[in-house]
Amino acid sequence: MGNMIRYELLGVCPHTKARRGRLHTPHGTVETPFFMPVGTQGSVKTVGFDDLEALGFEQILANTYHLSLRPGSDLVERFGGLHEFTSWNRGILTDSGGYQVMSLSASRKIDDSGVTFKSHLDGSLHFLSPERSIEIQGQLGVDISMALDECPPYPCSREEAARAMERTHAWAPRNLAARREEQAVFGIVQGGVHEDLRKESAEAIASHPFDGYAIGGVSVGEPTEMQYPVVAHTAPLLPKDKARYLMGVGHPKDIIHAVASGIDMFDCVLPTRMARHHAVYTLKGRINSMNAKFAEQSQPWDEDSVFPALERYSPAYIRHLFKAGEPLGPRLATLHNLAFYARLMEEIRSAITGGTWPDLVERYKLA
Amino acid sequence: MGNMIRYELLGVCPHTKARRGRLHTPHGTVETPFFMPVGTQGSVKTVGFDDLEALGFEQILANTYHLSLRPGSDLVERFGGLHEFTSWNRGILTDSGGYQVMSLSASRKIDDSGVTFKSHLDGSLHFLSPERSIEIQGQLGVDISMALDECPPYPCSREEAARAMERTHAWAPRNLAARREEQAVFGIVQGGVHEDLRKESAEAIASHPFDGYAIGGVSVGEPTEMQYPVVAHTAPLLPKDKARYLMGVGHPKDIIHAVASGIDMFDCVLPTRMARHHAVYTLKGRINSMNAKFAEQSQPWDEDSVFPALERYSPAYIRHLFKAGEPLGPRLATLHNLAFYARLMEEIRSAITGGTWPDLVERYKLA
Repeated sequence: MGNMIRYELLGVCPHTKARRGRLHTPHGTVETPFFMPVGTQGSVKTVGFDDLEALGFEQILANTYHLSLRPGSDLVERFGGLHEFTSWNRGILTDSGGYQVMSLSASRKIDDSGVTFKSHLDGSLHFLSPERSIEIQGQLGVDISMALDECPPYPCSREEAARAMERTHAWAPRNLAARREEQAVFGIVQGGVHEDLRKESAEAIASHPFDGYAIGGVSVGEPTEMQYPVVAHTAPLLPKDKARYLMGVGHPKDIIHAVASGIDMFDCVLPTRMARHHAVYTLKGRINSMNAKFAEQSQPWDEDSVFPALERYSPAYIRHLFKAGEPLGPRLATLHNLAFYARLMEEIRSAITGGTWPDLVERYKLA
Repeated sequence: MGNMIRYELLGVCPHTKARRGRLHTPHGTVETPFFMPVGTQGSVKTVGFDDLEALGFEQILANTYHLSLRPGSDLVERFGGLHEFTSWNRGILTDSGGYQVMSLSASRKIDDSGVTFKSHLDGSLHFLSPERSIEIQGQLGVDISMALDECPPYPCSREEAARAMERTHAWAPRNLAARREEQAVFGIVQGGVHEDLRKESAEAIASHPFDGYAIGGVSVGEPTEMQYPVVAHTAPLLPKDKARYLMGVGHPKDIIHAVASGIDMFDCVLPTRMARHHAVYTLKGRINSMNAKFAEQSQPWDEDSVFPALERYSPAYIRHLFKAGEPLGPRLATLHNLAFYARLMEEIRSAITGGTWPDLVERYKLA
């Protein structure tokens, strides 16, 4: 077990702790550091898999909680797995469902055995445990399963953070024991904003033979000034021979900071969710595409952020689409933002081995 | 004037009155008979212009009423016209706005001078006359402008149909007098379901030098048994040297019937609107893609209606997208239905000159 996922180090940054590498998965090799668009329900909102392929994404994230309720993991397994079901033949990582169960569910009860929760769809009662989460992800047949952890809300007391961390540690080996042959599982470090807890957690999780290691609990409403020290402190504590994943992060500058701390993998709803709220990323900052100043603009928002799928469309037309409630508006903004993130990751990878990290930081300083 | 649009007859059907030809427009040549997807607000809902090009569409329909209110024809004109504004460099036809003003507006008052109506967006008062409609369409810079006519509701009395027809006739020369140099305008025949009125109207409208001729008022809630005789009776009365356009029609079998009567051009919201209500066209009939029987289906709905843009997606996955409210669902169904209509028109054109009309009718008998 575990040899389905292999991290290969290609080079390190002369200026930072950033590292460039490759992640070998059952559905191909992914250049690291990389970003995963979020396809919660098995679809990245407004775009098709042909679009994601054209944009160059090699791996997406899907959601165990949502998919297990609808269409159901039994159905997906009968279909041959999530790749077969969705037609996406590149990498898929699923989160464990824990975050959704603990934060989104109408009501839930958590104890050492797992979490009992009500479906947001029909109020029916369900139970999620490390064993059950890994079983579901095994049915989905994804490339990378995430261990079930306890993710405390932010802000929370040191005692709450410690309690959630302890449970996460207790659950870690149960996740591993439940996996199928050839099912790769990543462990998750908790510990809130407390350096000593993060260190303790990194050591505890790293003591188990996970296929990769993630930092959890830093994206849940945590402001930048809390997030950066946690990432900078924790990333270097993770095993060097495995991929390191910062869950749910983030803004372009957050990603650049985390890569500089040694992170290899990212996912975030920002580029896709922001697009549906007509916000588009440019090197001059994130802009509101519905702003009246774009009403008659034919030139791009940012001459340095023009991507093939949108080259033909003017800011004036895209603003009109949003004003008129046309579904093409969110789609075009999503394609733009995903292209921006894809290029960001490409430029990050080049800057690491090209020795041009300071130029990269300068280029994205407003983004 | 008028030489911007030229109809070229290529051949006639040995079995019916169907004709195959070419429509030469300022934005290219369109093979006839053809179908125009409806882009009411300057966008065919859920799809981009790259999609429409890939599907092979050569002309779309946009809406004068909607575009004149938002973003406004002055803005579009300053932008260089609707082609420049939208990035669509193939043909555009606009309806006159009359139908929307007379049927959709919150309140309106019609007399011989024109129609006073309230905007559905903000309740502001506007005035539409033949002169104003043609002026707006001239500002939009489209390939084909439609004359403002009076389209009575269905059902209506013979007296109402006659009154609307008379006003349409009185307005006809005013539309032509208002056009810009090089602005092509099509006239519209009215007359309801009454053969004598349709004949009178066809003669009256054909007496004016329009660039093409349309049959109006047959799609507004009119059942098939009323529509077919009107089309069969009226189409042959239209000038043979100009394109003939049946407005707002229709189902595949309606289009086949109308082509057999001598019609060259169509537009209809059905393929796009039905797609958003998860109904997809197949040679076995229109089906509800959310039907439970597709929950685990990997094979296409119809083996004979598989199109490149959707080949990878299973009915099970598309059903899941609709169940989950994912925007990719309406998009994929729209791409499917538009591909179905594009193929229908292609097969219609082949059948006309290939002498295989009966085979075509047989092939689409359930569609």
